[in-house]
Amino acid sequence: MSKLTLSTAETITSAALEKAAELKLKPLTVAVLDAGGHTMLLKRQDGSSIMRPQIATGKAIGALAVGTGTRWLNANAESRPHFVNALNGASGGAIIPVPGGVLIKDGSGETLGAVGITGDTSDNDEACAVAGIEAVALIADCG
Amino acid sequence: MSKLTLSTAETITSAALEKAAELKLKPLTVAVLDAGGHTMLLKRQDGSSIMRPQIATGKAIGALAVGTGTRWLNANAESRPHFVNALNGASGGAIIPVPGGVLIKDGSGETLGAVGITGDTSDNDEACAVAGIEAVALIADCG
Amino acid sequence: MSKLTLSTAETITSAALEKAAELKLKPLTVAVLDAGGHTMLLKRQDGSSIMRPQIATGKAIGALAVGTGTRWLNANAESRPHFVNALNGASGGAIIPVPGGVLIKDGSGETLGAVGITGDTSDNDEACAVAGIEAVALIADCG
Amino acid sequence: MSKLTLSTAETITSAALEKAAELKLKPLTVAVLDAGGHTMLLKRQDGSSIMRPQIATGKAIGALAVGTGTRWLNANAESRPHFVNALNGASGGAIIPVPGGVLIKDGSGETLGAVGITGDTSDNDEACAVAGIEAVALIADCG
Repeated sequence: MSKLTLSTAETITSAALEKAAELKLKPLTVAVLDAGGHTMLLKRQDGSSIMRPQIATGKAIGALAVGTGTRWLNANAESRPHFVNALNGASGGAIIPVPGGVLIKDGSGETLGAVGITGDTSDNDEACAVAGIEAVALIADCG
Repeated sequence: MSKLTLSTAETITSAALEKAAELKLKPLTVAVLDAGGHTMLLKRQDGSSIMRPQIATGKAIGALAVGTGTRWLNANAESRPHFVNALNGASGGAIIPVPGGVLIKDGSGETLGAVGITGDTSDNDEACAVAGIEAVALIADCG
Repeated sequence: MSKLTLSTAETITSAALEKAAELKLKPLTVAVLDAGGHTMLLKRQDGSSIMRPQIATGKAIGALAVGTGTRWLNANAESRPHFVNALNGASGGAIIPVPGGVLIKDGSGETLGAVGITGDTSDNDEACAVAGIEAVALIADCG
Repeated sequence: MSKLTLSTAETITSAALEKAAELKLKPLTVAVLDAGGHTMLLKRQDGSSIMRPQIATGKAIGALAVGTGTRWLNANAESRPHFVNALNGASGGAIIPVPGGVLIKDGSGETLGAVGITGDTSDNDEACAVAGIEAVALIADCG
């Protein structure tokens, strides 16, 4: 596969939300972005708070921005905060550097897009993103 | 109904895209926003260009901003362009003042949210938004 | 009086909204700003759309920005649009250059603040602002 | 109650300011926002400084953004500052992450809006917000 389709993005999102239901998580917001960082699909569950679309999208953009999942950005925010602050500025405030932004890769290692999830703990958000990506037999890169 | 649910937003979006298929329109992007202007659901069809999410969302926000569909903003942009330019500034550039941003109202006239669609002509975009809203027996206000 | 008090701003707002009720206008948003352009009081009536706070405030700021009511800015937007566009840019998009932003002056001609109203036609918005200001025996400057 | 009315917002604000008078606090600014983050009522007491409207509003928006009172954001700002910095960027600088932004919930746990108060210590600001919300028999979520 060289490009995500909306249909694949729908399956990723549904599988992520099924995982969330299984784990009894709080209401989530899920964003699926293509390799260029543009939203293909965004769903905000009932009760998910109003800035969750920006947070979900910001996690996915963060992963695409640096070419690895946002767990890497989270670690960098601790070890060299000036870098993550600067990235935040360079992106016009778009990046959210905490776990839950996961790259979607194919078997050859090519990046097809990213999933960003928010609403529960960052670890749980990330687990749902991974479940979504694995449901379509693609590779999740958490960072 | 006092509030849109994600499930209703999904039905509105599916019905809008079925209408588009029926009319053989170009690939569309559909955004459904709640009454506060926050995205509940966004879908970008394969082939819909990269800034379509901002355009679809900007039409829906435009309708909510002034309390009527964006056909009204489009008319104002012609009769008093300084007002619409200023609104654009006041919204941080968020508003897209052309037809295709349609308020979703209930039977008592209360605004529950808005649909914004982009990708074909503004008139066709708007026709799909109306079809989506009518599919859930709510009222479309085009402006 | 050298300075508006919150209590005076409350009376101005109540009188403006009584005028609106008398004229059976649509739901309004009223902002009262001090001479420095800072909000003292803002009220959005039930059913007044979501960007009305920015519009009401933007009319009041516009009046204070140029030292006369926004009817003057509206006329300028027609005669020399490049000036009003530039003001919009210089204000970071804050100014709304249509009637309904009215300066509040005392008997010596000193500016104490401004009222901005939005929700009905610009002319009706302005009539309510004038009624509010006259209710506290101050002078309204519409531009 | 499924939606705040301006009349309820007025009672919340008056009760908050009565509490402040009782506690002999410094001049306050109070903002009441609806569930979508849009201002319904803002009052700045005489002597409350010029950026207080943005601070009061920013506390209320912060609470709505993440779905809990700003005491939670304040704690996060200490434990993972990069997350709160990023939220600030994602919100265009709108969020103020200190106590005093309190969610207004109904008995079923649904969020109806938020109150933001500033002018005294954050703890005192928050106490007034809680007093306001309890005066209308709604539930305060401080975070």
